[in-house]
Amino acid sequence: MTGGHYIALSGGVGGAKLALGLTKILSPDALTIVANTGDDFVHMGLHISPDLDTLLYNLAGLANRSVGWGREDESWNFMAVLRQISGECWFQLGDKDLALHVERTQRLTNGETLSAVTADVAGSFGIEHKIIPMSDDPVRTMVETPDGELSFQHYFVRDKCQPAVTGFRFDGIDQASPSPGFLAALKRPDLKGIIICPSNPFVSIDPIFALPGLAGLLREGLVPIVAVSPIVGGKAIKGPAAKMMAELGMPPTALAIAQHYQDVIDGLVIDHQDQRIIPDIKRINMHVCSAQTVMKNDADKQRLAGQVLNFIKDLPASKISASKISVRKGSA
Amino acid sequence: MTGGHYIALSGGVGGAKLALGLTKILSPDALTIVANTGDDFVHMGLHISPDLDTLLYNLAGLANRSVGWGREDESWNFMAVLRQISGECWFQLGDKDLALHVERTQRLTNGETLSAVTADVAGSFGIEHKIIPMSDDPVRTMVETPDGELSFQHYFVRDKCQPAVTGFRFDGIDQASPSPGFLAALKRPDLKGIIICPSNPFVSIDPIFALPGLAGLLREGLVPIVAVSPIVGGKAIKGPAAKMMAELGMPPTALAIAQHYQDVIDGLVIDHQDQRIIPDIKRINMHVCSAQTVMKNDADKQRLAGQVLNFIKDLPASKISASKISVRKGSA
Repeated sequence: MTGGHYIALSGGVGGAKLALGLTKILSPDALTIVANTGDDFVHMGLHISPDLDTLLYNLAGLANRSVGWGREDESWNFMAVLRQISGECWFQLGDKDLALHVERTQRLTNGETLSAVTADVAGSFGIEHKIIPMSDDPVRTMVETPDGELSFQHYFVRDKCQPAVTGFRFDGIDQASPSPGFLAALKRPDLKGIIICPSNPFVSIDPIFALPGLAGLLREGLVPIVAVSPIVGGKAIKGPAAKMMAELGMPPTALAIAQHYQDVIDGLVIDHQDQRIIPDIKRINMHVCSAQTVMKNDADKQRLAGQVLNFIKDLPASKISASKISVRKGSA
Repeated sequence: MTGGHYIALSGGVGGAKLALGLTKILSPDALTIVANTGDDFVHMGLHISPDLDTLLYNLAGLANRSVGWGREDESWNFMAVLRQISGECWFQLGDKDLALHVERTQRLTNGETLSAVTADVAGSFGIEHKIIPMSDDPVRTMVETPDGELSFQHYFVRDKCQPAVTGFRFDGIDQASPSPGFLAALKRPDLKGIIICPSNPFVSIDPIFALPGLAGLLREGLVPIVAVSPIVGGKAIKGPAAKMMAELGMPPTALAIAQHYQDVIDGLVIDHQDQRIIPDIKRINMHVCSAQTVMKNDADKQRLAGQVLNFIKDLPASKISASKISVRKGSA
C-alpha cells in the first residue's frame, strides 16, 4: 500500500487487534492510531490509561493475549503484598505494568503531556507507529445507571459490568481538546481515511467524537470514515457492548451499530455471518462490506486490516456527505 | 524482664537489629520503637520512609539480611521496566516493597497520618510491638556539602555518600511535632529508660532529638538515656557515620560518639574492642559499659538488648542530670 495517511480510532482489546493488523500493512508514516482516554482514571494515586496501554503492549509484542489486557510474563508480587496490607485490590496491577503507571504519573505531575509520555514509552518499547491519546486533557467516561453514575472503571472492572446502563457522560469533554498529534493527522493533506476499530461504540469511540471541534475538523477533511462492527452474530466479541445496547433499548446487531454511527461514517464492515443484514444497512444509505472480523491470530488481524483499507479506497468519493457530521456530545 | 516501659530510638539497619533484639525480651506493652523519619522522601510521587520500612521488615521477619534494606525474596520486574522506559533508577524499588509505598502514599494523600498507616501495616505484617514514626510532620534531613545542600537520599543512595559533609539541616523541624505515640510513650508513668540504637548519630538520631519540645519532655521524664555506639574500633559497622565524623573534624571513635551525645545521654555501651577508652568516657562524667555490639545474628541482637537493659537498670538514678538536656537543633 503506497501513499496516503490513515487514522485509526481505537479502544482497548478489539481495537488494538485491528490496529496491530494495520501496522503490518501501513508504514509508520502512513498511520496514526488514536486511543480513547475516556477510560483513564487515577487509581491509588497512579494515572492509568487502559486503552493506551493495551495498544502499547500489543504493538510492542508484550501483551497478554489470553486475557487481552496487561502484559505477558507478568508477575504479581505487588498485588500480593497490597492484598496483605489491605490495599484496594479490585484493579489488577502487574509488577511490570506498574512501572509504566508510576513513570507516567510522575511525568504528568511534572507537567509533561500524556502525548509526550506515550511517545517516549512507545519509543522505549520499540514501537515505530504513532500511538496518540485522543486528548491531553482529562476526559472521564461516567456510566449512568438507575442507582446513579459510576466512573467507567468502577463499572467495568470493580462491578464487572453488572449494573444496568441508562446512558453515558463524558466528564471534562467540554474543556478537552483533541491532542496535537490527532489534530496534525486530521490536517494532513494526504489523509485518505479514518478507521473506527471494532471497539465499544459508547465508551471507546463516542468519547473521541465528542471532543469539541472534532466534527468541524472531520468536515474539513471530507475523507471517508469506516467502522468495523464490534457486534458479530448478535454478540460483542468481548466486553459489554451487546449488554449495553440491550439496556439502552437497541437490538444488539450490526444494523444497530450502523444506525448508531449513521451520522458519522460512510461505510461499515460487518462479519460474514451478518451478511443477511447488508440490504438493511444499504437502506440507510451506508456502504457496507462483509469480512471475517473475528481476529484470532495475527494473520486474521492483518487480513482484516487489508480488507478495511481496500473498502475505504473503493468508496466513491462523491458519496462522502458533509451531512454525516452531526455527532452529538455524549450521545448514546 | 517485668514491669516498666522502654523507648528505643532507631534509624535503619543497625538500629533495627537492636530493636529486634529488644522485642525478643520486652513484651509489646513494654517497648515503643521510634523511627527516624528525616530520611523520608518522595520518589517518583511515592512517599518512602526507609527507616520505618527497615524496622517493619526486620520485625516482621521479611528483611533481606544480606544487604540490610528491603525484603528477602524480592523481585525486580518493576525496576527492569522502569529502566527500559528511562525512569529514575538510582533508588531500588522491589515489586513487593512498592506495595507499601503506593498504599502509604495513597493513604497519606487521603489525610491519614504516617503513624496510622504504619500501625496498620505493622498489624498486617503480624508485628505486635509498636513501631512509631518520630513525627507525622515532614522533616527532611539535608546534607550540607562544599557544593551545596543535598537531600539525604540523594547524598546517601544516588551519590553513594561520596560528597564531603560539612553539616546537616533538618528541613521542616520547626513545624514538626513528636508523633502522638512518641509523646504517649514519653509520658508513661512506668517509663524506665530510653535507648538510642547504634544508628548514625547525625542523620538518624539527631533529627529525633531536634523535634521542638522534645528536650522539655525528656527533662520531665528524667529517665535514663543510654546509647549504643555505632562506631566500633574506629569504624562504622555500616553506613557513612565514620566518614562523616572525619569530615566534621571528629575522630571516628566511640569517645567522639560519647562527646556528641554528652548533653543527652547518661550512659554509653561501647564494643569490647574499645574498652581502652572507658577511662576517657568516665572522665566526661558518663556511665559506660562494654559489650559485643556487632550483631551478626538474632542471638547477638537479643544478647546485646539484654545487656543494654541491664545497663539502664543499674544506672544510679541520682546521677541522671537534668542538665543533660541541651540538645541543639540540627547540631552536628
